[in-house]
Amino acid sequence: MQYNNMDTAEAFKRLCSIKHVSVKHVLDIRRINAYAIDAGAGLSYHYATMPVDEEIVSALQELANQQQLLEKYDAVLSGEVMNPGEKRRVLHHLTRGQVLGNVVIDGEDIGSFYRKQLEHIKAFSEKVRSGAIKGSTGKRFTTVCQIGIGGSDLGPRALYLALKGYAAGKEIKQMDAKFISNVDPDDAAAVIDSLDLERTLFILVSKSGTTLETLTNRDLVLNAIKESAITGIVPGKHMVAVTSNTSPLARDERMLDAFFIDDYIGGRYSSTSAVGGVILSLAFGYDVFQRLLDGAHQADVLAREKDIRNNAALMDAMIGLYLRNVLYRPMTAILPYSQALLRFPAHLQQLDMESNGKHVNRNGNEVSYQTGPVVFGEPGTNGQHSFYQLLHQGTDVIPLQFIGFKESQYGRDIVIQGSTSQQKLDANLAAQIVAFARGKDDDNPNKQFEGDRCSSLIVGKQLTPEALGALLSHYENKVMFQGFAWNLNSFDQEGVQLGKVLAKKVLAGCEGDETLKAVADLF
Amino acid sequence: MQYNNMDTAEAFKRLCSIKHVSVKHVLDIRRINAYAIDAGAGLSYHYATMPVDEEIVSALQELANQQQLLEKYDAVLSGEVMNPGEKRRVLHHLTRGQVLGNVVIDGEDIGSFYRKQLEHIKAFSEKVRSGAIKGSTGKRFTTVCQIGIGGSDLGPRALYLALKGYAAGKEIKQMDAKFISNVDPDDAAAVIDSLDLERTLFILVSKSGTTLETLTNRDLVLNAIKESAITGIVPGKHMVAVTSNTSPLARDERMLDAFFIDDYIGGRYSSTSAVGGVILSLAFGYDVFQRLLDGAHQADVLAREKDIRNNAALMDAMIGLYLRNVLYRPMTAILPYSQALLRFPAHLQQLDMESNGKHVNRNGNEVSYQTGPVVFGEPGTNGQHSFYQLLHQGTDVIPLQFIGFKESQYGRDIVIQGSTSQQKLDANLAAQIVAFARGKDDDNPNKQFEGDRCSSLIVGKQLTPEALGALLSHYENKVMFQGFAWNLNSFDQEGVQLGKVLAKKVLAGCEGDETLKAVADLF
Repeated sequence: MQYNNMDTAEAFKRLCSIKHVSVKHVLDIRRINAYAIDAGAGLSYHYATMPVDEEIVSALQELANQQQLLEKYDAVLSGEVMNPGEKRRVLHHLTRGQVLGNVVIDGEDIGSFYRKQLEHIKAFSEKVRSGAIKGSTGKRFTTVCQIGIGGSDLGPRALYLALKGYAAGKEIKQMDAKFISNVDPDDAAAVIDSLDLERTLFILVSKSGTTLETLTNRDLVLNAIKESAITGIVPGKHMVAVTSNTSPLARDERMLDAFFIDDYIGGRYSSTSAVGGVILSLAFGYDVFQRLLDGAHQADVLAREKDIRNNAALMDAMIGLYLRNVLYRPMTAILPYSQALLRFPAHLQQLDMESNGKHVNRNGNEVSYQTGPVVFGEPGTNGQHSFYQLLHQGTDVIPLQFIGFKESQYGRDIVIQGSTSQQKLDANLAAQIVAFARGKDDDNPNKQFEGDRCSSLIVGKQLTPEALGALLSHYENKVMFQGFAWNLNSFDQEGVQLGKVLAKKVLAGCEGDETLKAVADLF
Repeated sequence: MQYNNMDTAEAFKRLCSIKHVSVKHVLDIRRINAYAIDAGAGLSYHYATMPVDEEIVSALQELANQQQLLEKYDAVLSGEVMNPGEKRRVLHHLTRGQVLGNVVIDGEDIGSFYRKQLEHIKAFSEKVRSGAIKGSTGKRFTTVCQIGIGGSDLGPRALYLALKGYAAGKEIKQMDAKFISNVDPDDAAAVIDSLDLERTLFILVSKSGTTLETLTNRDLVLNAIKESAITGIVPGKHMVAVTSNTSPLARDERMLDAFFIDDYIGGRYSSTSAVGGVILSLAFGYDVFQRLLDGAHQADVLAREKDIRNNAALMDAMIGLYLRNVLYRPMTAILPYSQALLRFPAHLQQLDMESNGKHVNRNGNEVSYQTGPVVFGEPGTNGQHSFYQLLHQGTDVIPLQFIGFKESQYGRDIVIQGSTSQQKLDANLAAQIVAFARGKDDDNPNKQFEGDRCSSLIVGKQLTPEALGALLSHYENKVMFQGFAWNLNSFDQEGVQLGKVLAKKVLAGCEGDETLKAVADLF
């Protein structure tokens, strides 16, 4: 396998020399019908309103080939060490199924380790949901509360919110889920205030078992349980751990149970491991979580397709790279027309920006091109009434990624002024895609829309567990492909270390660092 | 008054020619102590880690003078027509007090109109909170639910979340507040599911009384009340309107009450009018809302200060302009180290991007420089475990705006490993400011931090109603000053019209527009 910087690839040089495409001038029915790819679990990816044509797509294919993106994906799936900085394998795909057969490390079948965790999650969640496992004062658990930060929070939280309405629409029995993440004590205080502690099961999530925020919030929770002075309550019997086999939490006998992940699952890729699995299985039942895994697995399989025109994650990745390195667009907006995906953009922020916000390549040498973009977004139609003004008429062009569904989750909708709310929602989404692309001429420059503002679309029938899994996997694989193309290590995060070190120094009194002390004294 | 494009100002040309400052090389205690400005209500604004020096600040002052920013602010305060496109005055400052005396229009004292609304809000909210006004089935109201979108949602929601912990910490009696905004029917379904309809008072907010999303969600709510078949429930007796005097909602006799705003209050500037006032007064009592107004008024007064070194909003605005137009930074991140400010960045997204995301000046002519940046953000320390990797080591420099407080709101905090959570939170914030500015050299390029990543800080003792008001006003005035400097009309939003028109066309069957139909058929 070759690991070369993107700008050494012949195809990249060719890509830079191809004439740019004006979406405004080429958008037609043929493109809309032709530029669509199956993205798994009933989702499809559409790029008719992206500034590419056959020539550019062919160059993107060539670049993907020269950078060996599919070979590198296979290396991930085969369990090679693909996180060279930390000398780790990258096995989150394996948490949802085998794409390329067994991964055996030191004689251990890792897939079987993950499957064992799934069986444990299934059995435990069924016992809690049926009432066979109760709180320490004999009451049934009705609420789960995850204590975790970063990847132990953003992904699971986004997925929980995404499925709540689905479960309600299908009359699936639910446990409420809450999340405590921030070291700001007001986060824990607000959540604890909303809990019936006797009926709450806490899930403590930290791979290392040493995350400062998470251990601090655990202690705030334990203190609150103690201070509640509820007769007979045993705090440990209201808490399980999700951690690595070797962490201090794994051996904490006071806790009700423990579920394991390993070093091959990075935080931002951990939603389909026990990190997301325990809370989702408790909240909605194991079956819903398994269906999410199935959807993710479907998209993982599709991402091995060699032809970029049939590989949605690869196409999305390579178009993103074209936007970033040829058209110099430093941002991208994620705009789900689905209230259920309220926090999905926050998850993608971590996934993308922590993976590819890097200035050195996988060998540690500075790269001379731009890497991961800034990702932000809010659900439509809310965003339309907020920041779309800038998207339509601002001085910068921001590439857009729309997500939409044909059906709502709750299915509670009525016809008002001739259409349902879902029809209004989707009409707005279709209208925005066309408005951004075509623009509109007007004699009054203030009512002039230049158009040529590009977007892609992922659309599905309904936001089901399978569709959500495929959506999650689509973005994971997209980010992975981009990292390979840029020749980065997308699986470490050295950039978060310096702040941690300095924060400890502040707490230790700044150790003679006068500038640091002057800033710390502002608080 | 002169309205000239920024690039015609001599001071702008001079600004472009001044040598850039490397924060990394100049940061010291003197700067940290000197580069601080009172921002009202106990807040202070710090810019020691922004890439400016005395020479640049002097040029920024000169540019502010040449673009007549303070004269234009006075024109706003005096009630001149400062939204030329819509021929409207801009009077949101007046909702929190008179800075420059009465504003009389057609013989009517507008300030007295706003004060009358406040008296109405005070009286009504006290009656609801005391139980003098009850639901139609005789039960006390315990929950308020705002139905609105854009400015009728983002600002009030951000402020409500920001004050919930404060009220809890001070044992102020609270009503729960919920919000329905999105036309996605799942938004209303989820919120309605969480409500006890007999005890819920809905606040319908639409200035025009014609906002599609809001009227649709009203009808979904009315339908849900009807379908609940609660004996004796009268839907209208569970709903008040916040609207303009002349809207259809103002005369809807079925509703319990109505509160008025006028055309001089833009949606994104309406949080301190009845749009935010009714819900905040119901949730926390009128006194809390009045204190928020007082804090905003304090900052409004400070924003008239001529010396940029004593005017936090002006300094923040002009440094932002320097970052945008001299250093070419297209984004800015808002990073509150306060879980209570969870949705404050979403409000600022609308405030900033809808106000200044414009490509034409106030006369309707295309400008040849970049205007409003993209704004995004999440609370710290959560963000540290998410996208800070890119902020520290990505290939683009993103200017940062930190917000922090010395004390928590709930005051429920314990010492863990030698420090409270609040101390840990603030230590992290101080550490990040210094880490971004100074960076760190390392032989391993992957552990190398270039530094020179600039930030500003707004800090206060506690997030009180006054501090929140001052914070809100700071950003409103900052955005206003930037709009004046860029010679924009920051008070219209023509960019949202095209999408609305096309959405109606889709709902009407696309009217022969084949491309639009092909996109609409994807759903």
